[in-house]
Amino acid sequence: MNKTEFEPADPNFDRRIRESFRRQQAMATFHAAIHSVAPGSVEIDFEHHESLTQQHGFLHGGVVASVLDSACGYSALTLMPADREVVTVEYKINLLRPATARAFRAVGQVVSAGKRLVVVSGTAYALLDSVSAGPGKAVASMLATMMPVDPGT
Amino acid sequence: MNKTEFEPADPNFDRRIRESFRRQQAMATFHAAIHSVAPGSVEIDFEHHESLTQQHGFLHGGVVASVLDSACGYSALTLMPADREVVTVEYKINLLRPATARAFRAVGQVVSAGKRLVVVSGTAYALLDSVSAGPGKAVASMLATMMPVDPGT
Amino acid sequence: MNKTEFEPADPNFDRRIRESFRRQQAMATFHAAIHSVAPGSVEIDFEHHESLTQQHGFLHGGVVASVLDSACGYSALTLMPADREVVTVEYKINLLRPATARAFRAVGQVVSAGKRLVVVSGTAYALLDSVSAGPGKAVASMLATMMPVDPGT
Amino acid sequence: MNKTEFEPADPNFDRRIRESFRRQQAMATFHAAIHSVAPGSVEIDFEHHESLTQQHGFLHGGVVASVLDSACGYSALTLMPADREVVTVEYKINLLRPATARAFRAVGQVVSAGKRLVVVSGTAYALLDSVSAGPGKAVASMLATMMPVDPGT
Repeated sequence: MNKTEFEPADPNFDRRIRESFRRQQAMATFHAAIHSVAPGSVEIDFEHHESLTQQHGFLHGGVVASVLDSACGYSALTLMPADREVVTVEYKINLLRPATARAFRAVGQVVSAGKRLVVVSGTAYALLDSVSAGPGKAVASMLATMMPVDPGT
Repeated sequence: MNKTEFEPADPNFDRRIRESFRRQQAMATFHAAIHSVAPGSVEIDFEHHESLTQQHGFLHGGVVASVLDSACGYSALTLMPADREVVTVEYKINLLRPATARAFRAVGQVVSAGKRLVVVSGTAYALLDSVSAGPGKAVASMLATMMPVDPGT
Repeated sequence: MNKTEFEPADPNFDRRIRESFRRQQAMATFHAAIHSVAPGSVEIDFEHHESLTQQHGFLHGGVVASVLDSACGYSALTLMPADREVVTVEYKINLLRPATARAFRAVGQVVSAGKRLVVVSGTAYALLDSVSAGPGKAVASMLATMMPVDPGT
Repeated sequence: MNKTEFEPADPNFDRRIRESFRRQQAMATFHAAIHSVAPGSVEIDFEHHESLTQQHGFLHGGVVASVLDSACGYSALTLMPADREVVTVEYKINLLRPATARAFRAVGQVVSAGKRLVVVSGTAYALLDSVSAGPGKAVASMLATMMPVDPGT
């Protein structure tokens, strides 16, 4: 996959995505913040928080899925004209290991951008420490289908 | 699918599941509560809440997925011996329509209970009103794979 | 799921589906034949054959997936107007047990029929014997997304 | 993904995989042949054939899925000890565009190799011509879960 092969249709895609992200109250609840926006790829960081745990005190897999879903959706949105949005049609996620770390990064990457559907792959990594902030072990893999829609409909 | 075809291995499965559910802080954050527990099937109710919305003010699809994931996982857990837990291996979810309602029900139903893996299907419905509390239109379909694990490992 | 809730848009849907099926040479190679066609649901029977086996001599899971995919696609097609076709966007399949039987039935059932996408669930059963021809144990579960298309495009 | 990060447990993995492949009669029916075997990654070539077409004369998506499934399964098998096999638990596949080419390559790549489950991603490409034999446009993406099993069970 080559991140540079995709051309944004709207030069203001970066700003548009950050504005949409701010309107997602769920992302604030998930302590998630955009790390980077590029044509065909959006990265979102998120953190372990007591209020988001499963029964063993680790981050609930559903939170990992939610942020990955948003990273994949916004990755598709980077390629849309200014008057289009995207909705998630479906995704499949493999939870590769328990999310025992304190911080994570969800990386979306467009695989195929058709007129009617956009296929995006996603990976969530544990961030090992706040110094390197580099990607650690993958905790989840996603393969998602996004659909461009007219927001008026 | 016949809900009565599955036999619980632990007579105290109902209590065990409600205790595990209470330890999932994410479920409180998602305003989710168990509606019913039966062999092979668990139902969880959850509600629209401002803190859980996507950019259009509807419930974030990730919250629907999270609760469905828990409903499917606990459906598998109803069939486990007392000393076993389950983890989510993977799932696929189709978001059928926007989650515009105020309240929802996630229904898990075991499809196949093998020794090493349990396959569960899930459906999330809109609850039309607090009076009937009956299932409305489906907002999401899930097909999930759960794995029994020894909690000590 | 109620099979009668779906209305066909084309009164000749049955004939149209059988004609399309006959053009799928892969279905002949897979020894598959339509068992029934109803609004929102198509059933296809298929058989074990030496030429379709995996390394242990059982039917290859890919053959089960192929026929289920066709059953799901044709289930969606039953609801389309005469001038539309459907293509498979994606599916997820769980192979529940080895396909050790001699004959199988793939059952598709529309879950949600939107204007732009149709979600279909599928189950493949072992047929226990040629006398009862009734559904035996499920060997696979599918959840698929189909897209109506204009055949001219 | 780094193909060199995986260590085969059986030095004879290459021979073992080619022998298993030869026993899959379905692969002969699909005109499929192994292109390469490496630790964590197996590539299988396959061809358009009249007997494997859907209603428009293109290769049936189920054939693409079948060969990708085998590529993913054998990718997992490269990492197994000599006395283990793998079975497909489940996969999800996105069919990205019609399989209109004459020849294709299915590439499996292990994402995560656990003791109990192996997650593999797969991509099927059109091969543009027999001279370059290089990867053309992707026609399908897969995310699959494989399970190591004792062949005696």
